[in-house]
Amino acid sequence: MIEDHLFDVEEPITKKNVYTYLAFFDDASPIDIADFIASRPASESLLLFNILPDEKGILTFSYLPFRSQIAILYALPSERIAKILNELAPDDRTSLLESLPTDIMNLLIKYLSPQERELSIRLLGYSEKSVGRLMTPDFIAIKKDWSVREVIDFIRKNGHDSETINYIYVVDDNDILIDDLRIRQLLFATMDSKVSKLCDFKFISLNVDDSEEDAIQTFRRYSRAALPVIDNKGLLLGIVTIDDIIAIAIEEDTEDMQKIGGVQSLKDPYMDIPLMNLIEKRAGWLVILFLGELLTASAMGFFEHELERAIVLTLFIPLIISSGGNAGSQATTLIIRALSLGEVTLKDWGKIIWRELSSGVILGSILGFIGFIRVCIWEAIFDTYGQHWLMIAFTVAFSVLGVVLLGTLTGAAMPLILRRLGQDPAAASAPFVATFVDVMGLILYFNIALLILKGTLL
Amino acid sequence: MIEDHLFDVEEPITKKNVYTYLAFFDDASPIDIADFIASRPASESLLLFNILPDEKGILTFSYLPFRSQIAILYALPSERIAKILNELAPDDRTSLLESLPTDIMNLLIKYLSPQERELSIRLLGYSEKSVGRLMTPDFIAIKKDWSVREVIDFIRKNGHDSETINYIYVVDDNDILIDDLRIRQLLFATMDSKVSKLCDFKFISLNVDDSEEDAIQTFRRYSRAALPVIDNKGLLLGIVTIDDIIAIAIEEDTEDMQKIGGVQSLKDPYMDIPLMNLIEKRAGWLVILFLGELLTASAMGFFEHELERAIVLTLFIPLIISSGGNAGSQATTLIIRALSLGEVTLKDWGKIIWRELSSGVILGSILGFIGFIRVCIWEAIFDTYGQHWLMIAFTVAFSVLGVVLLGTLTGAAMPLILRRLGQDPAAASAPFVATFVDVMGLILYFNIALLILKGTLL
Repeated sequence: MIEDHLFDVEEPITKKNVYTYLAFFDDASPIDIADFIASRPASESLLLFNILPDEKGILTFSYLPFRSQIAILYALPSERIAKILNELAPDDRTSLLESLPTDIMNLLIKYLSPQERELSIRLLGYSEKSVGRLMTPDFIAIKKDWSVREVIDFIRKNGHDSETINYIYVVDDNDILIDDLRIRQLLFATMDSKVSKLCDFKFISLNVDDSEEDAIQTFRRYSRAALPVIDNKGLLLGIVTIDDIIAIAIEEDTEDMQKIGGVQSLKDPYMDIPLMNLIEKRAGWLVILFLGELLTASAMGFFEHELERAIVLTLFIPLIISSGGNAGSQATTLIIRALSLGEVTLKDWGKIIWRELSSGVILGSILGFIGFIRVCIWEAIFDTYGQHWLMIAFTVAFSVLGVVLLGTLTGAAMPLILRRLGQDPAAASAPFVATFVDVMGLILYFNIALLILKGTLL
Repeated sequence: MIEDHLFDVEEPITKKNVYTYLAFFDDASPIDIADFIASRPASESLLLFNILPDEKGILTFSYLPFRSQIAILYALPSERIAKILNELAPDDRTSLLESLPTDIMNLLIKYLSPQERELSIRLLGYSEKSVGRLMTPDFIAIKKDWSVREVIDFIRKNGHDSETINYIYVVDDNDILIDDLRIRQLLFATMDSKVSKLCDFKFISLNVDDSEEDAIQTFRRYSRAALPVIDNKGLLLGIVTIDDIIAIAIEEDTEDMQKIGGVQSLKDPYMDIPLMNLIEKRAGWLVILFLGELLTASAMGFFEHELERAIVLTLFIPLIISSGGNAGSQATTLIIRALSLGEVTLKDWGKIIWRELSSGVILGSILGFIGFIRVCIWEAIFDTYGQHWLMIAFTVAFSVLGVVLLGTLTGAAMPLILRRLGQDPAAASAPFVATFVDVMGLILYFNIALLILKGTLL
């Protein structure tokens, strides 16, 4: 990788020394060059980008992060902007354009040739996060009455722009998709055989209005390198390739994980984010959770009288609330991931709640029992808890059982409810569940204590 | 999908009615059939599997989960076992065999033909979780002095077993890999041109000893459908295809997420795991964390005297420890994910700690300030905290700052330390960090309280 040679560039890159990079760039793949360019300050990026030969420049451009793409476009003369934008693959162009403010997007669209402009406007017309925004119309479509020879001639003549020639799509006279063929089927057939002989008229496709998530699940399930995109009438509109899907899938997984960890999705790699942005992304959730946790102080204030009479109750507060938090964190993580992989759907809510209820009771009983034993042992050895130690042990045991059950149920229900409301299930991140369980857990604990210890300690 | 038609089968599948499924199976793809078969009880699975025609049977078999594969193998006559095992793709066979206890594995290997047996033993000889275990030796290798026509003839004759013909590998006379070509390059070239004319002698490859994680990162980076595998001398040994990589990447991401959520990796889909196993996977961590949290009771017992004198201190305990937990959870999630995507490496530890230290100070100050204000407001309105309210406010503010800093530093350091020790960074799951921070946070809180309130409240 290019970084191995160049990443530790100490000297600034200037007009004078920039050509020394040309040899390295000649050998490196566009993605590595893009990484290197993106890692340099803006002024150097531009110098480096400008020494790239045309074709490699466009490929490299497509791998640059949006902010570098935009910085470079701003600085280039109009003809170069027009050239890059017109030659960028339609799907890459869509994702660049949709990341821009509307006025800049409209400005850039003006650089496109009439044909490319029409195409871009059509692709941007599909709703955000839909398959339409991911597809490229560069595919190979053939007719079923062609011979294999005709198909191969057609590919040789028209296939240069196609994103993939590994799949060939068979359409009828109205451009309705009727089958997909692999290039290997063509190579293994005799030149004179008809395409219809190779067809089984079965194919997997995406609908142009499908969500990105649907597309990811279909790709994962059928492990194809590309899938055709059709509209509701079956018209073949474009293809989506696996590389775009992998990029989106990584982003989605990262977002889910970061939400589980209670961070607003970072969008950029950890090291690339300016420190202040990193802090901003974290402060929002932390402050919300902190405000939520302030309720614990209020809840405890409400029971201050009881606390004064039985200071021993305070000793178990961290233990009890964190058990609920941990149990809730487990449940919410499992359900968020299962939803995102399509292992469970909303229809399964009854079964999920039943499983979590059972898990909660059993896990809570195990932990409650350990808590009970702990109080008994400490009492036996250190005589810590006074004459009402058995009542205290029961209070701890039942409270732990209660909060663990509360945790598993809240943790499981929250992602389901959010999905039902059309929100992202991962937004019910583990710390959010934990905070909710903390407050409710305290109230539960003091009520159980009141119930068991009334007339003795309280 | 087949489930739409058949998933709600209420009637048991018997020898009598099994053939009604044949029509459905004819239309369905192997992965859908596999899903359906796996969803039925073992006795029915076998009946269903037996009606599949040979070739489709083997494809379907390769998509079945291990437990169904094993159940089916147990029940089949020896000739059929031999047939299935011999015709299974080498990489699929490796992953089945490596999931078995050694004695059963050795038993099954005996069914293989001498040639396939040698191959399987060789593949199983590579270390677990290495690229060697993922690769298949079914690829197309050509020489650089062949003409395009010769190559295409060669593919038509020998390519039927190849996992992919989208990439063709060029080797020298010692089978050292010297280039990779895409099938499109061949199609677009004239029949008489030499392979060497098409070569640029640059290629991306995996080493047979690379870890699965390395392979995932290389595939993600270069978005290829397949990559060649070489040994240290450059000898071409096999190829790894994207479908296997996607499957592993999903597993790894799921495992990371579940560890962040404090669950031992489930391995199977949420709904497929028997309830008792699900509980077992969760109980382990919960018990460990509970035992850890018991230390909070001890820590607080140590400060019982102070608590008695200043009961007001207890009110802020949940607030303070959970702030540390949330901050730690954020940091640990960010670092685990960044490590797993290769965005940061161990070498960056200095920068990471610096970023987390800065984040911790700023985030802690924000939360501490909010806590300070909260005490002031409640004091002004409800007169809650008595004459020393200002000291209490300072105690809360500094404690929050302290635990948030403790949380971010612990959360960031733990995954780095684990990686340094050769362990999985995700094992430093968020609840584990939270539990550690809970205990240390309490000690910090009481010490700050002692420092600020000594001579007044304490």
